[in-house]
Amino acid sequence: MASTKGKFCMTKHYGDASVKFTNPPSIISAAAIVGQKEGDGPLAAYFDEISQDILFGKETWEQAESELMRRTVELAVQKSGKTMADVNYIFAGDLLNQTSGSVYGARSSGRPFFGLFGACSAMGEGMSLAAMLVDGGFADYVVANASSHFCGAEKTFRFPLELGTQRAPTASWTVTGDGAVLLAAYGDGPYVTAATTGAIVDMGQKDANNMGAAMAPAAADVIAKHFRDLNLLPTHYDAIVTGDLGTVGSTLLIQLLQDEGFDIKSRHNDCGLLIYDREKQDVHAGGSGCGCSAAVFAAYFYDKLKKGEINKMLFVPTGALHSVVTIQQGETIPGIAHAVAIERSIS
Amino acid sequence: MASTKGKFCMTKHYGDASVKFTNPPSIISAAAIVGQKEGDGPLAAYFDEISQDILFGKETWEQAESELMRRTVELAVQKSGKTMADVNYIFAGDLLNQTSGSVYGARSSGRPFFGLFGACSAMGEGMSLAAMLVDGGFADYVVANASSHFCGAEKTFRFPLELGTQRAPTASWTVTGDGAVLLAAYGDGPYVTAATTGAIVDMGQKDANNMGAAMAPAAADVIAKHFRDLNLLPTHYDAIVTGDLGTVGSTLLIQLLQDEGFDIKSRHNDCGLLIYDREKQDVHAGGSGCGCSAAVFAAYFYDKLKKGEINKMLFVPTGALHSVVTIQQGETIPGIAHAVAIERSIS
Repeated sequence: MASTKGKFCMTKHYGDASVKFTNPPSIISAAAIVGQKEGDGPLAAYFDEISQDILFGKETWEQAESELMRRTVELAVQKSGKTMADVNYIFAGDLLNQTSGSVYGARSSGRPFFGLFGACSAMGEGMSLAAMLVDGGFADYVVANASSHFCGAEKTFRFPLELGTQRAPTASWTVTGDGAVLLAAYGDGPYVTAATTGAIVDMGQKDANNMGAAMAPAAADVIAKHFRDLNLLPTHYDAIVTGDLGTVGSTLLIQLLQDEGFDIKSRHNDCGLLIYDREKQDVHAGGSGCGCSAAVFAAYFYDKLKKGEINKMLFVPTGALHSVVTIQQGETIPGIAHAVAIERSIS
Repeated sequence: MASTKGKFCMTKHYGDASVKFTNPPSIISAAAIVGQKEGDGPLAAYFDEISQDILFGKETWEQAESELMRRTVELAVQKSGKTMADVNYIFAGDLLNQTSGSVYGARSSGRPFFGLFGACSAMGEGMSLAAMLVDGGFADYVVANASSHFCGAEKTFRFPLELGTQRAPTASWTVTGDGAVLLAAYGDGPYVTAATTGAIVDMGQKDANNMGAAMAPAAADVIAKHFRDLNLLPTHYDAIVTGDLGTVGSTLLIQLLQDEGFDIKSRHNDCGLLIYDREKQDVHAGGSGCGCSAAVFAAYFYDKLKKGEINKMLFVPTGALHSVVTIQQGETIPGIAHAVAIERSIS
């Protein structure tokens, strides 16, 4: 049994954690559905649907999130002109225990399903894997999806809504929203050109009311790796957009990267800072949740990329990987972030 | 911006849900660590380690599972002769809320991490994706890992142990165990030659004490797809091994596949039926949990494959995708299963 050494090697892998795609998959469609609070924010015009009903016609928060997920994925597929039967794989993640939002949302699709857990980094994780499957020759059409629901998240991680518990200034507001993208082997872009996969980074943060501080080190880590692995500078990108670091985390990120020799300040933005009007909407540190980065990307940034108003973007969804139980046990909060490079055109 | 149509297509995809690997990745090492109950079973001699301490030196069930996971992954890497720094990616999943076992277990590795949720199908999901990343040219070394812990699972899904609640005859016993494999672009096999990805299948089962019945339809669905997609008969394989269907689920599986025209009875086995001595160990329907299929594969089947006692195997970890909350809300239990084809030699 001859060794296959030399016959095959990771030709697309660069440095510690990055890959470049030989035939960059095209994001041929995107859809985003959100709740009323998100619909009252500055990105209202970009969302496909704004639901007045926080329950999405269902009876529980979990069912609401599944319905939100199902509708958004179906809409993304519909907008592409393909059918659900054309979809080779669905990648989806959310925050709920046993990722129930994604599971029950994808159930009716009948398509091959890969469930993910990366907390709020799920969209980055999903888009990275989707692109690898397409570029690897395993699929022509792959959906990447992530969702969150404010009420479901409060129930899963914090307190009953009826208590009216006060939130810390560093706390964020979980987005009720879903973003879905369809990646394809053929298309006119925007293209996923590279991906850097995050490691779990834990700098000892314990405050569950300050997710930004817990996640910023992981975001800095993956962004720095992306630049080093691929020999790029921040100026390569028009926009470097994190998922939900919020005010606190964004400031920390910029500082951490400055310490590494990378100045991203002039081109950094954060989906959690974009989705709400922080002066009028009382969201404290900003928006959060898997659906935050997913919906803001699928609605706002996808539009900007399609129009060529942004040509090269690094999309970096960020997640905090704790649970209620680990916090109660005195554990620290590990973070993770995944960087996805998207370009309007490829040569 | 020219369309890339025709330049690239899913050359490795077959039928509805299957892929064949052009350069089948080699499983160059495997490790399995289990608890005492598993160590008292018939596969004792195959496990790398049997822990006398159900807490694995830690103070909580969740920390115990993380420690179990960390040790097993490190052992698999050590046995391969490589170092953790050589590992390009880790895929890991478990049953805990927010997959805490995997997250805190992988934290110290420093390696790029993809968290999965597929319930007890996690090892199949992980091995499929790991193989795709290697064969796709994105990685040379990828770990696939799955874990479960009896006490952590009882806490997450059922009742406090102190209550001494009686279990139904159809109930299974969650394995305390972890199985890790290291896939590589070079090696002498056994080789991962193909993978069929499951869809979520829900036939309306509501009994959380009968996981086998909930999962059997998903297993039948993916196995039938595997045969059809790749134009194979059951006789192609020496062994077709499900994860944890147990007694009830296995009987159902065989019947469901018979109805589809596939007779697998003579070559079917189930990790949940293998890991315990069901006459002496009072496990009712058999073993279950992500760690069941993972540990039994990494210990027992990997050994049989290396020795050539099994030449071609279809490994089908099976998962039930409910949560406590969805059951309480009267939801049904969706199932999923992923089929991984493994062959001792490739021509």
